[in-house]
Amino acid sequence: SSSSSSDMRFSRAFIVTQREDPSGEADAVSSRLLLRAGFTRKVAAGIYEWLPLGLRVLKKVEQIIREEMNAVSGQEVWLPIVQPKELWQQSGRWGIYGKELLRFKDRKDTEFCLSPTAEEVVTDLVAHHITSWRQLPQMLYQFSTKFRDEARPRFGLLRGREFYMKDGYSFHAGEQDAQEYYLQMQKAYVRVFERLGFKYRMVEAETGPIGGSFSHEFMVLAETGEDMLAHCPECRYSANLERAECAPRSAADDKKSVAAIEELATPGHSSVDAVAAFTGLPSSTFIKTMFYWTPQKSPVVCLVRGDHEVNEPKLKRFLKVDDLIKMEEPDYVRISGSPVGFAGPQGLRERLASFNGARLLADHAVAAIAGGVSGANKKDVHVKNLSHGRDFTVEAFGDFHVAAAGDICPRCQKSAFVFQKGIEVGHIFKLGVKYSKAFNASYLDTEGKPQLMVMGCYGIGVSRIVAAVIEQNHDEMGMIWPKAIAPMSVHLIGVEAFDEQV
Amino acid sequence: SSSSSSDMRFSRAFIVTQREDPSGEADAVSSRLLLRAGFTRKVAAGIYEWLPLGLRVLKKVEQIIREEMNAVSGQEVWLPIVQPKELWQQSGRWGIYGKELLRFKDRKDTEFCLSPTAEEVVTDLVAHHITSWRQLPQMLYQFSTKFRDEARPRFGLLRGREFYMKDGYSFHAGEQDAQEYYLQMQKAYVRVFERLGFKYRMVEAETGPIGGSFSHEFMVLAETGEDMLAHCPECRYSANLERAECAPRSAADDKKSVAAIEELATPGHSSVDAVAAFTGLPSSTFIKTMFYWTPQKSPVVCLVRGDHEVNEPKLKRFLKVDDLIKMEEPDYVRISGSPVGFAGPQGLRERLASFNGARLLADHAVAAIAGGVSGANKKDVHVKNLSHGRDFTVEAFGDFHVAAAGDICPRCQKSAFVFQKGIEVGHIFKLGVKYSKAFNASYLDTEGKPQLMVMGCYGIGVSRIVAAVIEQNHDEMGMIWPKAIAPMSVHLIGVEAFDEQV
Repeated sequence: SSSSSSDMRFSRAFIVTQREDPSGEADAVSSRLLLRAGFTRKVAAGIYEWLPLGLRVLKKVEQIIREEMNAVSGQEVWLPIVQPKELWQQSGRWGIYGKELLRFKDRKDTEFCLSPTAEEVVTDLVAHHITSWRQLPQMLYQFSTKFRDEARPRFGLLRGREFYMKDGYSFHAGEQDAQEYYLQMQKAYVRVFERLGFKYRMVEAETGPIGGSFSHEFMVLAETGEDMLAHCPECRYSANLERAECAPRSAADDKKSVAAIEELATPGHSSVDAVAAFTGLPSSTFIKTMFYWTPQKSPVVCLVRGDHEVNEPKLKRFLKVDDLIKMEEPDYVRISGSPVGFAGPQGLRERLASFNGARLLADHAVAAIAGGVSGANKKDVHVKNLSHGRDFTVEAFGDFHVAAAGDICPRCQKSAFVFQKGIEVGHIFKLGVKYSKAFNASYLDTEGKPQLMVMGCYGIGVSRIVAAVIEQNHDEMGMIWPKAIAPMSVHLIGVEAFDEQV
Repeated sequence: SSSSSSDMRFSRAFIVTQREDPSGEADAVSSRLLLRAGFTRKVAAGIYEWLPLGLRVLKKVEQIIREEMNAVSGQEVWLPIVQPKELWQQSGRWGIYGKELLRFKDRKDTEFCLSPTAEEVVTDLVAHHITSWRQLPQMLYQFSTKFRDEARPRFGLLRGREFYMKDGYSFHAGEQDAQEYYLQMQKAYVRVFERLGFKYRMVEAETGPIGGSFSHEFMVLAETGEDMLAHCPECRYSANLERAECAPRSAADDKKSVAAIEELATPGHSSVDAVAAFTGLPSSTFIKTMFYWTPQKSPVVCLVRGDHEVNEPKLKRFLKVDDLIKMEEPDYVRISGSPVGFAGPQGLRERLASFNGARLLADHAVAAIAGGVSGANKKDVHVKNLSHGRDFTVEAFGDFHVAAAGDICPRCQKSAFVFQKGIEVGHIFKLGVKYSKAFNASYLDTEGKPQLMVMGCYGIGVSRIVAAVIEQNHDEMGMIWPKAIAPMSVHLIGVEAFDEQV
């Protein structure tokens, strides 16, 4: 290349390789290989330097993202890294963001934080400058160094503290425009991940109690991923584990033949695993009885199959509550009327009737258990052959468990889920008016009436992508770079000419 | 342009102009114009956002600098913004850097700072990876957001707290290579400032007690500049005011005709200005007697002309000391034997002989005063017709005053200095082995012997350049952008076609 910025003389380059694996970096192959090849260097826990080869890759990833953001009318800006407390108080996040938000005081004792994200600053900016529907929509994005003070920085660049991120924020006159733009952005993200040569999945992600399908994560498939996703090989529905819906199981059709309920002595055994091992009965025939409080202090009880876990976001969305708190011992005993670990669904509906606003729900999979095993509401005793309808009832069935092996895709209902490990590298989200309300980001509509702007936000972990590429593309010889982001396209080597013997 | 990253539709662009000058930004025309035109936005004292138009300019400046750094074999890296205390302790700067170094603790109470510069981190990096003369020289540079917690952030981007800077660091096997590279870098800086279309001067800058000419500042000439520089229109020698050398004045040649020394009653008048006004004698005939301590507690007295100021860096360099502390009242009285404000050079040399290591120096300009005015070493009395040689002597004359009107260029001795105001936007510096010593950045030389690397460092304030461009280029209509960094090259406007009347 003739450009002085893209060629590099190997003998003069700052390429510092190491023969041995660096200590303390055994938890991620990407970190190990990047450090050994002199692409990065660790300065402190979760804080890395980008050396010449690594930075070239990072900048190429950045440029691909920039082009795709510009293609959907994104406008690049830079928002500050040091952000004033006042803006974070205005959104309420100064109070609720945990220790990951690194806070400090300047020399005048004014409080600031290091930006982990920028909703506050960008909404304040737009609120001050945009006044009319004619000026909307707007999408502002930036590339910048972010800081999150992780409790346990690990996996090298995958969960660092100082990292490089693209964050974008869009502002719309109305829901309809926000939704249409969301779909455009989805396509822009798809183009980014295609250009990067990733094997990836766009998965539906959790949106909080509001629901809807306006949050997607982009997962790079890798055995070493921290996240699990459920994928339907038939219709290609994909969702992260927290979000994945499950089709109802067909109800047990042999209920009539279920034998009469029978008590089992289970001395000292209360957990599903312990009772299953002690009795020899499969945990998939167990019914777990889980107790929660709503924020309004109403008891919520949810039954799930013994080998399933309650999916709290699904339960929250069904109940339209922001939070659910697991019940601790004295309350558990008072509400269930049972010693801890031995509660079961028998008589529970009748008992709950005396508690204000109490709910009793069960996962669909519980309905499919012909003869179930559960606690007997007394110490060291379980029951078997428990049958819904005959031995207990619930208020309603629903999809309340975390998708697991054997679950069927809810969309096509044709195939069981395949579970894959992934690394989350992008997340897009329709924010609604949460921040526009806090910052009074309003505009005058076509009739001159003030309306809150509808927002979306769109993140990509740029430094995390560099690591994810390696997690997905390496072999025993080391890193394998996709052409689009390889640090160098060509390595010229001078070889000695020799006389050919004819 | 066909590139999606360089065109922008005006009607859809986030260009938010303001009719009125923003409040609190009256101190710099650049800040006022950039804010009004929607190039930047203030978030907190000394902290700014870069909006789309402003960022385009900033990135163009960045790219020009990048190309010139690459042309002198620079290799771009990214060093962290959050830097561990330990590295700053190793250089000793954790202790001596003042409150401008913003320090904080992470969630585990480990101390860090926000990087204001990166000598520590980069020297530690090179010390760990470079071992042989064969791997030298190396020049690593970065563009990054820096933070300096200025006591009084002002002049918008010119003296902000969060700012964008290019900092480069070179490592050499030996002085000779470091010096040759320094000259290459000087040329690279010249190319940067030429390409930016600046009227600027490269000026010699202070290097500390070591001396030499291996520090240069790049000053953008502007009436609004905070810095003053001295420039010789004849030979083009330029230096900042702190550094500028002055040719010795020709000694007074009419000394023989000086009348006898005479006392003047100056009741209640001690400052040069007050005594000059009271007596009607010009301040340029006064001799000021200034008292200092060296760090080793030896008294230093320096005589300068009444309308001159002592240039402490020059005095320090002459004395080969790191610091000079102005003498306070009780010591002044004890050493001078005079009430405060009335000390003069009569009998001073004899008196100082009794103090250990005392020095008595005078600026060349004092030698040129035929009959001087000074304090008489007693309250409310001055003397006139004071003549060097006849009435007092000093140990040595030298160049100890801050260059002022009438001073002659020391190089060509042909012209008096022209003084100009400037904005410092670049600074290059031969560091020597200060940091390589602290971090044991050594290499094996051709004979296999360990040697400390010789370093240089090279900074440019990228965000400050954007402001400096406007300080130099604006009129009553607003900002005037040089073509190379204008946010847009072409503004297409659709105009209604009309029928031409023939």
